[in-house]
Amino acid sequence: MAGGSGTRFWPLSRKGEPKQLLKFFGDQTLLRATIDRIAPICPPQRRLVITAAPLVHAVREVLPELAPGLVIGEPAPRNTAPCMALAALAAQELAPDAILVLLPADHWVADPVAFQRALVLAAEHADEGHIVTLGVTPTQPETGYGYIELAGEIALDVADVARFVEKPDLDAALQYLAGGRHLWNAGVFVVRADRALQALDRHVPEIGKQLEELKLYPLGGEAWQAVLKVAFPHCPNVSIDYGVMEHETAIRVVRLSAGWSDVGTWHSILGLRPDGHDNFTHGAVLPIDSHNCVIISKGPLVAVVGMTNVAVVATDDATLVLPLDRSQDVRRVVAEVTALGRTDLL
Amino acid sequence: MAGGSGTRFWPLSRKGEPKQLLKFFGDQTLLRATIDRIAPICPPQRRLVITAAPLVHAVREVLPELAPGLVIGEPAPRNTAPCMALAALAAQELAPDAILVLLPADHWVADPVAFQRALVLAAEHADEGHIVTLGVTPTQPETGYGYIELAGEIALDVADVARFVEKPDLDAALQYLAGGRHLWNAGVFVVRADRALQALDRHVPEIGKQLEELKLYPLGGEAWQAVLKVAFPHCPNVSIDYGVMEHETAIRVVRLSAGWSDVGTWHSILGLRPDGHDNFTHGAVLPIDSHNCVIISKGPLVAVVGMTNVAVVATDDATLVLPLDRSQDVRRVVAEVTALGRTDLL
Repeated sequence: MAGGSGTRFWPLSRKGEPKQLLKFFGDQTLLRATIDRIAPICPPQRRLVITAAPLVHAVREVLPELAPGLVIGEPAPRNTAPCMALAALAAQELAPDAILVLLPADHWVADPVAFQRALVLAAEHADEGHIVTLGVTPTQPETGYGYIELAGEIALDVADVARFVEKPDLDAALQYLAGGRHLWNAGVFVVRADRALQALDRHVPEIGKQLEELKLYPLGGEAWQAVLKVAFPHCPNVSIDYGVMEHETAIRVVRLSAGWSDVGTWHSILGLRPDGHDNFTHGAVLPIDSHNCVIISKGPLVAVVGMTNVAVVATDDATLVLPLDRSQDVRRVVAEVTALGRTDLL
Repeated sequence: MAGGSGTRFWPLSRKGEPKQLLKFFGDQTLLRATIDRIAPICPPQRRLVITAAPLVHAVREVLPELAPGLVIGEPAPRNTAPCMALAALAAQELAPDAILVLLPADHWVADPVAFQRALVLAAEHADEGHIVTLGVTPTQPETGYGYIELAGEIALDVADVARFVEKPDLDAALQYLAGGRHLWNAGVFVVRADRALQALDRHVPEIGKQLEELKLYPLGGEAWQAVLKVAFPHCPNVSIDYGVMEHETAIRVVRLSAGWSDVGTWHSILGLRPDGHDNFTHGAVLPIDSHNCVIISKGPLVAVVGMTNVAVVATDDATLVLPLDRSQDVRRVVAEVTALGRTDLL
């Protein structure tokens, strides 16, 4: 699932270069890293990328090993439930008994092998007909994540899910952290393709109705594309969590112990520093007496003296300086840049 | 005197574009503003600019009204005493009884008319044979300026000078501020050309010896240039303050009440905000919830959120972020940029 178009990483992220296409770590985009992370358990001909139509070309450049038909462009943004339907339909064409592993393309994982193990375990449960999600043991009272409430004990890293919980306030997050009955929702879903379509038909039937005609044509062909272009924008705009998970019973969760982050804000980037590093740095940067800073350059040399807990991010045409605890205010900056009429910077 | 090559305003100032060629205020370089400030009392054919040889072309572009021969390039940096000698020799050729007004090309003055009045008053005293300097009533215990100690009372804005004092420590600066017997040395000297050469011959005779041959050739001509190129680098490297003023008696000071700054550091720039402005800004900048900041862009859009007392300065190839009270550390940054081998940024 590589359809995101967030602006939370402005000035690095732009309309034509959203987060999944950025290189925060080394020379790899988050999308490339996502694919490489599952490479040992998923051959290229089984990798399917669903992105926004305007990003198809950029995605194909990042993933040249994929057949062009395996990169699908959504004609309009409709959140993740329609994406799940599209993935299920496409996967069934690749293999009728396919198990879907729905992965956000813009997350960070420290230990790929542990991640693969969790997915294989999830796939085993999915094969039995369960919808399986990955859950991460909370390490801080995070208010930026959704949570999964467990119905019972975790046995061999698997548990039944009681319910999905939206982003909590700090009090609730502290309770979840102390209680041990909640995991972070990693936004990863593992489910048999037929089971996914069944769940979608049950809870959001409009999606299946709109996309039904796709089954008549070869995946990715001209006729298929034409149908997609007309039908997809009519799908309801709804997420897998709200559209499906909140209404489903018999959901299981596999505990993921791999070091995980949704890379949600500049502040979260700081947590992904290599061990022992004082600052998170990328590109031509020169920190002097600076600590706990995120300093990133995509061009100019960025010298930062005597700063603490600050993000300094520079591209060729824009620079952002803000305290990490105000990472949410990037939205405000983007709004003001828009108000200035500088759409060239968005 | 437009020979400066400081790095205190990196990344704005560069070897080929030192402070006097920068535009801090509106669309005018400090050099252009310096010339315009004296325009009503000094016609173009009496304006002489002495700069570093590599800057001659840039200076001529800023001051197109000057005849090419009135922009002189020093073949090597030798501080201000040799510059004074060169100015005096050149001025005598323009008018044998010339009075020199030696102005740093990179200062800021709020009230040009008060500045002109002070210079005219100084010229009257210079005409009587005095060396005259301008002094500014201290408004804070500044440790970055030299001071002028008065020998007696100020009468009609003029006083005799007891001595010149180097940059003091904070204790001394506090005493000077309280005592009322010290003025800031504005680095402006007014003196008859013949009197300047006489003082130089008395205290730094080597300069006159080296430059004597210049008198044989027409100012700015080929032969004159050839002599300058050979002779000037042999001049001792010494300032007017140390080489001449500390040894002279009968120096007078004219009090300058015009709003003055030597524009010495990023911190000093903050003091030059227009009234009522929260930050000093220049170029494409976007301050949000930021106060007492210096935010300057020569290219990229610079968004600064929630910062206080910080300088954020961006050019197309370099960005600097530092607390204003660490403005002195720009030198350290420049040293590290040099150590990185990024001479393209200097």
